[in-house]
Amino acid sequence: MIRIASFVAAVGAASLLSIGAMAQSAADLKMDASTPENVLTLGMGHGQQRYSALDQINKETVKKLVPVWNYSLNDARGQESQPLIYKGVMYVTTHQATHAIDSKTGRQIWQHKIEYPPETTRTVCCGILNRGAAIYEGMLFRATLDANVIALDAKTGKELWRSNAASVKDSFSMTMAPLIADGVVLTGISGGEYGTRGFIDGWDPATGRHLWRRFTTAAPGEKGGDTWPGDTHKHGGAPTWITGTYDPDLGLVYWGTGNGGPWNAEFRKGDNLYVASVLALRPKTGEIAWHYQFSPNSRYDHDAVSENILADVTIDGKSHKAILHVDRNGFTYVIDRANGKLLSAEQYVDKLNWADGVDMKTGRPILSAATKKVQAGEAVEIWPGVFGGKNWFPASYNPKTGLVYSNTLEMGNVYAPVEPKFVKNAMYLGYDLSKFAFAFPKGGSSSYLRAIDPVTGKSKWKVGYDVANWSGTMSTGGDLVFTGALTGEFLAYDADTGKKLWQFQTGSGIIGQPVTWQQDGRQYVSVASGIGGAYAIYIPLLAGNNKELVASLGKIQPGGSIWTFALIEE
Amino acid sequence: MIRIASFVAAVGAASLLSIGAMAQSAADLKMDASTPENVLTLGMGHGQQRYSALDQINKETVKKLVPVWNYSLNDARGQESQPLIYKGVMYVTTHQATHAIDSKTGRQIWQHKIEYPPETTRTVCCGILNRGAAIYEGMLFRATLDANVIALDAKTGKELWRSNAASVKDSFSMTMAPLIADGVVLTGISGGEYGTRGFIDGWDPATGRHLWRRFTTAAPGEKGGDTWPGDTHKHGGAPTWITGTYDPDLGLVYWGTGNGGPWNAEFRKGDNLYVASVLALRPKTGEIAWHYQFSPNSRYDHDAVSENILADVTIDGKSHKAILHVDRNGFTYVIDRANGKLLSAEQYVDKLNWADGVDMKTGRPILSAATKKVQAGEAVEIWPGVFGGKNWFPASYNPKTGLVYSNTLEMGNVYAPVEPKFVKNAMYLGYDLSKFAFAFPKGGSSSYLRAIDPVTGKSKWKVGYDVANWSGTMSTGGDLVFTGALTGEFLAYDADTGKKLWQFQTGSGIIGQPVTWQQDGRQYVSVASGIGGAYAIYIPLLAGNNKELVASLGKIQPGGSIWTFALIEE
Repeated sequence: MIRIASFVAAVGAASLLSIGAMAQSAADLKMDASTPENVLTLGMGHGQQRYSALDQINKETVKKLVPVWNYSLNDARGQESQPLIYKGVMYVTTHQATHAIDSKTGRQIWQHKIEYPPETTRTVCCGILNRGAAIYEGMLFRATLDANVIALDAKTGKELWRSNAASVKDSFSMTMAPLIADGVVLTGISGGEYGTRGFIDGWDPATGRHLWRRFTTAAPGEKGGDTWPGDTHKHGGAPTWITGTYDPDLGLVYWGTGNGGPWNAEFRKGDNLYVASVLALRPKTGEIAWHYQFSPNSRYDHDAVSENILADVTIDGKSHKAILHVDRNGFTYVIDRANGKLLSAEQYVDKLNWADGVDMKTGRPILSAATKKVQAGEAVEIWPGVFGGKNWFPASYNPKTGLVYSNTLEMGNVYAPVEPKFVKNAMYLGYDLSKFAFAFPKGGSSSYLRAIDPVTGKSKWKVGYDVANWSGTMSTGGDLVFTGALTGEFLAYDADTGKKLWQFQTGSGIIGQPVTWQQDGRQYVSVASGIGGAYAIYIPLLAGNNKELVASLGKIQPGGSIWTFALIEE
Repeated sequence: MIRIASFVAAVGAASLLSIGAMAQSAADLKMDASTPENVLTLGMGHGQQRYSALDQINKETVKKLVPVWNYSLNDARGQESQPLIYKGVMYVTTHQATHAIDSKTGRQIWQHKIEYPPETTRTVCCGILNRGAAIYEGMLFRATLDANVIALDAKTGKELWRSNAASVKDSFSMTMAPLIADGVVLTGISGGEYGTRGFIDGWDPATGRHLWRRFTTAAPGEKGGDTWPGDTHKHGGAPTWITGTYDPDLGLVYWGTGNGGPWNAEFRKGDNLYVASVLALRPKTGEIAWHYQFSPNSRYDHDAVSENILADVTIDGKSHKAILHVDRNGFTYVIDRANGKLLSAEQYVDKLNWADGVDMKTGRPILSAATKKVQAGEAVEIWPGVFGGKNWFPASYNPKTGLVYSNTLEMGNVYAPVEPKFVKNAMYLGYDLSKFAFAFPKGGSSSYLRAIDPVTGKSKWKVGYDVANWSGTMSTGGDLVFTGALTGEFLAYDADTGKKLWQFQTGSGIIGQPVTWQQDGRQYVSVASGIGGAYAIYIPLLAGNNKELVASLGKIQPGGSIWTFALIEE
């Protein structure tokens, strides 16, 4: 208790600045990472470090961590949503509703339901779900599966406006949480497997008016337009299905883009800007200040949508205002966030054969012999495969240890090139799926929680799972890393050693994003439980001979709920 | 721990008797109430006292009671099922599956799914749900909503046999847990609102062969047949939708019967044996040894299906082997279980106007002026109304306090007689439902947990709820009463004072039946959560002006799961 009190005193002066201002002002959002009584942003701060200095729950006390309430989401789909907390109210989204919950009792305050036409789910490749809301000036913003952005009154749940971003008839959908940056609501788009063209939108929070659209594949005549043959950019992918980070001081938003369309890149030769990239955008206009492309010509479905964590990183004695990015392609990157200069790029997975490394002079991957064979039309087992070394699930960064804590994967796939054909509302791939079945490591695990040095890519420690982990991590000043398992356990690890210190079985599989906050002097941790997402969908279809894994998955029960934990009161 | 150890020592000698016998033998079932490591029977013993002598969790320690695991049932329907526990495996039923769960970790061992034709639910009046299984000699027995009885291999979940009891086309359904008595599987039937004719069946556990059927309305020529005009017994109701109790020493099963059909009794003048009665049956044959009718001619839907708790009761200094029965009609009864002699019948609800008491000489209720008006065709507000003073939810009996702990209701309805018409698969009532809306107390609560003296009917204490309570209670040697609230809280009360000592919010509404057991020296408590049942269905339709209650109900989220609690380990 003393440690929390002193921490609060330290941030108290800053908190006072917002008194008298509108609720959830831009200043409040900017200070979210250092004001533990609320969780106002996805990633627990615009920088998405998913780190809280709270330390009431720590290595010593975590053994007394117990559930304090559960709230059923009445939704058997996957739960990847991150809760927000503002003044004792928790806001949680599912694909079909937004819930306001009393954060002390778990009782519902209001619920706003969403309906969408049944054809919506036809082109949702990887899970009928939603990843969270944004809050700003008394309003809650969220996207819907049928690609609408809606604003709700945070007090009552009343719908204030609804704006359509794109049509499900054109295979678009939305699952990410909106981002508030410089007074603009930014949203991305899903649908990259269906030959769509990705974009990022800006909306007026007060009215829902569309302010700008930044397409993520460059058209002929635009900068980067020459990286696409013919009109291939029109079905070029580069979806934007994970929320960007924001540096208010530099005035830049960092938003990752997904795979190219079709997956088989021989039918769109060139770098294909801006697939598998990070775009540094000015949020008022959508203008691109700079970009960095992780996987030029991206051919393995290696979306580069991983969060671009804002952190100060010291390399060779020099401090950099950087973004840290654990890419799906198996490398972890450090990039100067002011100008996009690559500072480091190192392998973090055990097995990687699509590239021989990243050339620090050009910033480009050195394509391997395996990839050259795929380019030549051969069927080759490539690692990481289609799920990548890290999928959607966000990592956390602990500034005390300087480590990035991420769940990771060790799986490959056989990419057997075939000619793709664009058919509206069908997957646009260009590989023979009958040969695609997942490959798993001969020894070791197919999934690890890793404590990654972001500069060297080396893991200080790693912990294996039998069933792959598909959830985010959270780091705390209590020297803990929280994450959830697909088998249902919510878990706390020692940030220094990876020793498992605590677990609790939540009833369904966890693929959510943990948060922590304090209320009336007590530290709380919350996470959604509810199995779903791409792994749960595709492993039963494509696990090949791994019947044991399919059987294990089959024993996990669907069922969405929100869990809140705290130390038992003495 | 010491208290548990000494208790185990005390029962150890008895437990040894069953060593070497087949798993879950008749002897094991008989001793269930005194062998706390397992829960082999509905009601935690054939006598359904729902009492355990375990006292590790008690008035002092209950503040350290915390969830140890949750298991999602992947079912948004109501959860009234009581778990069984045998050697570290928990068995739980829903309307659509049977689950075997590791009782320490909450991980699934096996699941057996049930499918039934969609027309099944057309004539399920009061909740799509199941109340539990029976276990015997390595087999698990359960009923299905479409009126089949099935046997599963308890180790693997493999279906061993399936026998049909009745057709959903004739409005029959099944929700109760089977009863094992004298080597026979006994089952009841639901559907009393649809002009069905009730019965109890006996089945061979090894093969599923039908052994006998006892109809619960007497046909002309049979004993009691003269209590029905014409062929009214054919649609006369008396369903048997709650599991009976069993006294192995007397060789008698006590099974309650439900309302008469149609509800309006003027169209079936007479006592209508055996509606609203308890039948003492010989389990090998279904022969009726004796009966007692709580509500002759039952006209208010006052099913007498309440559990008939086996207990030794002292009245005027004389001890009786009795059954205790808290009837839906607002009276609590003590009956000699050897011969059916009424020993006491006293009002336990605050408001009751259908009768002026029970005549101890005749054993019959003294019909009130209000009931005589209804008989004359007038519309009258009757208390208790259609839900009764106690509905399906089982009470518990604590032999230490001699009190029955039951959730109870204080609600009335206006019964406006009209002529009923039998239409197949339609409700067969005879009251004008447009005038039926629930009446609630002007002051006080519409629902109380009561500590009832079974002989006097007086409540030693009562605790009110805002939203009515629809769940069972459990009593323990730790001087606690456990129950769950429809608003989601699992609750522990001081058995002596009614003081609330502990609660936990389980995410959905609780309408389940708590159990407790011990494993490796640790006492566990489990209960299902998941709102549903008749109250949740009909209050939104028939709450009249009580919009606040309907709004409160609307905030409770569906979502079925099993919760297990224990004291936090130091």
